[in-house]
Amino acid sequence: MTSKIKVIGFDADDTLWVNEPNYKEAESEFCKLMLEYGSEKKSSEELFRAEMKNLGLYGYGAKAFMLSLIETALIISNYKLKPEVIHEIIDLGKTLLNKPVQLLHGVEYVLKELNGKYKLIMASKGDLLDQERKLDKSGLSAHFHHIEIMSNKEVPDYEKLLKNLEIHPDEFLMVGNSIRSDILPVLQIGGYATHIPYHTTWQYEKLENTKVDNPRFREVSQIEEILQFLL
Amino acid sequence: MTSKIKVIGFDADDTLWVNEPNYKEAESEFCKLMLEYGSEKKSSEELFRAEMKNLGLYGYGAKAFMLSLIETALIISNYKLKPEVIHEIIDLGKTLLNKPVQLLHGVEYVLKELNGKYKLIMASKGDLLDQERKLDKSGLSAHFHHIEIMSNKEVPDYEKLLKNLEIHPDEFLMVGNSIRSDILPVLQIGGYATHIPYHTTWQYEKLENTKVDNPRFREVSQIEEILQFLL
Repeated sequence: MTSKIKVIGFDADDTLWVNEPNYKEAESEFCKLMLEYGSEKKSSEELFRAEMKNLGLYGYGAKAFMLSLIETALIISNYKLKPEVIHEIIDLGKTLLNKPVQLLHGVEYVLKELNGKYKLIMASKGDLLDQERKLDKSGLSAHFHHIEIMSNKEVPDYEKLLKNLEIHPDEFLMVGNSIRSDILPVLQIGGYATHIPYHTTWQYEKLENTKVDNPRFREVSQIEEILQFLL
Repeated sequence: MTSKIKVIGFDADDTLWVNEPNYKEAESEFCKLMLEYGSEKKSSEELFRAEMKNLGLYGYGAKAFMLSLIETALIISNYKLKPEVIHEIIDLGKTLLNKPVQLLHGVEYVLKELNGKYKLIMASKGDLLDQERKLDKSGLSAHFHHIEIMSNKEVPDYEKLLKNLEIHPDEFLMVGNSIRSDILPVLQIGGYATHIPYHTTWQYEKLENTKVDNPRFREVSQIEEILQFLL
């Protein structure tokens, strides 16, 4: 598998550093603020509905999340929300944006080992500024040849990425935690993909009962395991 | 001037297409919604204050603008805002995001004339998805070799851009409407910069009484004029 690979793309959120647990924590705080108007379950469901409705217009990331939280709060409270609660929701979002970056185990070691042997890139979805800031806080910038913040991670987006990198799909390996965003589209265009499942996954990224059967696909449980077939 | 230039960077908002007037229109609608709580002048001032306070955390673009509008509304109303007004503010923002793209005069002709003779790139600030969507709606994508959505347009950002393009500063010309973002940092690193003033400028981008005195600087009143020294 390793012979032709020149470029390795790493997803960022929940592949290099902790992300979804921070969103889950913010969501849980939000549901507590909403208890006066509805159950946690109802608030969670309404939030997901708002996020899906707004995804095409807002895209991914913390600001989109904040706007969907506010919209959800209006709906759940039937427009009887106290204005102070909006303020608290904005504060929740600002706290999320200001979170320190917590690297996942083994990430720094793996990047150091691979740097110089492959061209390493970070390919992540989300708010442009927020992802740049997280990368900066992570201290990992120096390992990456190129940073690609993508508005989407679908087949055309990866095709564009490979075109910019001037490489063929079989020279590219993507490593990430989302079967939907990091694995399937890359396999579809003929690239290699390695899945590192993370314990917490956003409902949108979940693909239940998807069994990937492709010779260019691997699943590992720890990022260090990729060194076994890349070094 | 033209002998060495290989790459021309075009700012997008208010250089290729109408932008600031759409924001001004949304701001004006917002101030009307706020009249019950304060004058238009006060609302405008409070909004600008919130935008400046949040700029470092949120960055540029429509979602940041929406979040600052909501925050401003809470402050101006002294937390006595009717929740329905928050809904109207969110709708204002969604309308802004859904605006059709209106090309500025001469843009398409100029890009067609220069394409093939220079490498053309679009270099713009703002929301990643929103800028990609505007480019898509504009029908101008095919003219650009590369699209760079930047979280900031300061000296280090342009240095990174030129490094990625693998060119020297004196091979680069930036064309844009903001002295602060498109002109000064590019001149500072030794590039060429051409200013096309636009009738409406966001207060943040305004630099009053700035007289640019640099042999690599030009000012034109219409985008077609750049052809005179580039063809």
